[in-house]
Amino acid sequence: MRRALALAASPGVPLHPNPRVGCVLLADDGTVVGEGFHHGAGTPHAEVEALRVAGERARGATAIVTLEPCNHTGRTGPCAQALIAAGVRRVVIAQRDPNPLASGGMETLLEAGLEVEAGLLTDEAEEVNRAWTFAHRNGRPFVTWKFATTLDGRSAASDGSSRWVSSLPARRDTHLLRGLCDTMMVGTGTVEADDPQLTVRDDDDRPLANQPLRVVMGDRDLPAERRIFDDAAPTVHLRTHDPVEALRTLYADHDRHHVFLEGGPTLAAAFLKAGVVDEVVAYVAPLLLGSGRSAVGRLGIRSIDKALRLEITDTTVVGEGTDANVRLLLRPTRKES
Amino acid sequence: MRRALALAASPGVPLHPNPRVGCVLLADDGTVVGEGFHHGAGTPHAEVEALRVAGERARGATAIVTLEPCNHTGRTGPCAQALIAAGVRRVVIAQRDPNPLASGGMETLLEAGLEVEAGLLTDEAEEVNRAWTFAHRNGRPFVTWKFATTLDGRSAASDGSSRWVSSLPARRDTHLLRGLCDTMMVGTGTVEADDPQLTVRDDDDRPLANQPLRVVMGDRDLPAERRIFDDAAPTVHLRTHDPVEALRTLYADHDRHHVFLEGGPTLAAAFLKAGVVDEVVAYVAPLLLGSGRSAVGRLGIRSIDKALRLEITDTTVVGEGTDANVRLLLRPTRKES
Repeated sequence: MRRALALAASPGVPLHPNPRVGCVLLADDGTVVGEGFHHGAGTPHAEVEALRVAGERARGATAIVTLEPCNHTGRTGPCAQALIAAGVRRVVIAQRDPNPLASGGMETLLEAGLEVEAGLLTDEAEEVNRAWTFAHRNGRPFVTWKFATTLDGRSAASDGSSRWVSSLPARRDTHLLRGLCDTMMVGTGTVEADDPQLTVRDDDDRPLANQPLRVVMGDRDLPAERRIFDDAAPTVHLRTHDPVEALRTLYADHDRHHVFLEGGPTLAAAFLKAGVVDEVVAYVAPLLLGSGRSAVGRLGIRSIDKALRLEITDTTVVGEGTDANVRLLLRPTRKES
Repeated sequence: MRRALALAASPGVPLHPNPRVGCVLLADDGTVVGEGFHHGAGTPHAEVEALRVAGERARGATAIVTLEPCNHTGRTGPCAQALIAAGVRRVVIAQRDPNPLASGGMETLLEAGLEVEAGLLTDEAEEVNRAWTFAHRNGRPFVTWKFATTLDGRSAASDGSSRWVSSLPARRDTHLLRGLCDTMMVGTGTVEADDPQLTVRDDDDRPLANQPLRVVMGDRDLPAERRIFDDAAPTVHLRTHDPVEALRTLYADHDRHHVFLEGGPTLAAAFLKAGVVDEVVAYVAPLLLGSGRSAVGRLGIRSIDKALRLEITDTTVVGEGTDANVRLLLRPTRKES
């Protein structure tokens, strides 16, 4: 299974919209007769690739798969049927499929008389497709909220200037994290104030080929000439103030699993109050301003014992010398899922 | 010299008011014939201790000392004379003495016909007595400003509650840092609002035997029953609003070399504006409040390019799990010294 997980996490595989899956086929004597991994939407599933490699040797073999074989016909045929047709005897599964459209593969295999075992390295398998798993379980995308702040909690000076709070290495690091998500979101206020293009760019400031969906949330009309509406990537304007509604729409109508939230203090506060921030990325710059716009808007919290408590999961210094910023990864201490 | 520096930095030696000094005496063939270090005010200096160990073997020897031998008679006799009297032939010095009252030892040795060499591992030697060196060079104590903040820059909630922003491990860590200084300072506002005792306590919350001087700065009269005036440690009330004046008084009248500044946002802002913060210790707690008292008061900064820029020198996670806080050590990018 560890080999199958490593295959699933092969570099270069798109994170969206399909889960990453690895499969290893073992003969009775334990020799590997085939292996494969899913290369992204529209390409053969991991099981099919492994069966192709194994050919006749698949008969009587054991299939080790990181995710329950699918039961539905999407752009490719159902994998459960392919395993049965190839004469596979036993299937070992790490993670059951949380996607209601694709699940049922295990039952199909059992009905066909195969031995099926599930639950091996399940946590590790879920981590390989963390956002995808979360989204199908919760009916909404996983939300990573990113913000940049001075050491004294400011996101802009009192004259409104904010370029740049973060150092260049920190801003480049942000683009790496953006590229791991399938959606980037801001509010109408940020579009009006900063006119961001909201694309993922490489270290030479060139846009990557695969851009996440750009989403702007809020009721206000926006001029079409705003950079977020250019042709660098698709853009959706969600005319709502309800974060939960916006997220359900992104999941149900746009098949989105991971939102990178980069709005200003107001949008961030709305998501925090709604309890739909699942991860926080804070870039702390070693600057003091003493006044200016707060990095986080009002949360309706009056006393210290009601503070929104997070847990630090990682601390990394990004950049060197006077360019060094501290990047904190955090998660809420009470998860809603 | 590395051995002499290690001796100087021996554990348990008080940091105040004397510098830490180490001395190694070498015979012509390189064998160590004596070594010593200074154990604190009122005890023999490092050179005298090393000479006592060496006895007659000091004649013709080379003395390796981390600090220029003193030339004045304080609580002990001048070391330069002791080295000459013992017949030492050559003296190697890491750091020249920055204290105008004690310097001149090198000239005395040269006049007596000894070989003298200065400048070996000077930076390392200065670091051993960092605050002491700084104070004598600048005529004022080194200032470490410590503050605790939420991730969004708040030191208290909107109802004023602030116990606790920092986690218990972070508060214990603060006591360790307090114990490295000879002075702790707050403003009259903090004494009125929080009534701190301002002592250094161990992990069992018991006060240490050696307490730093407690200083409260500001014009306002304070009731004598405030805890800062109890008999746990000496206390000075400096009736001024000028940080530079306060620091000069602490150096000239109280022989203080290292102030641990723990005031509220107003006092911190006054020191920052005066350019007399030499080091910053920030405890960042993974809490969000969205409103409440800012950790840093107004600095008169209007635009981002005028922000007070610091450089991160250390990042440490203090505590574990939900008790983890991030401790940042920083220094101003433009030093005034």
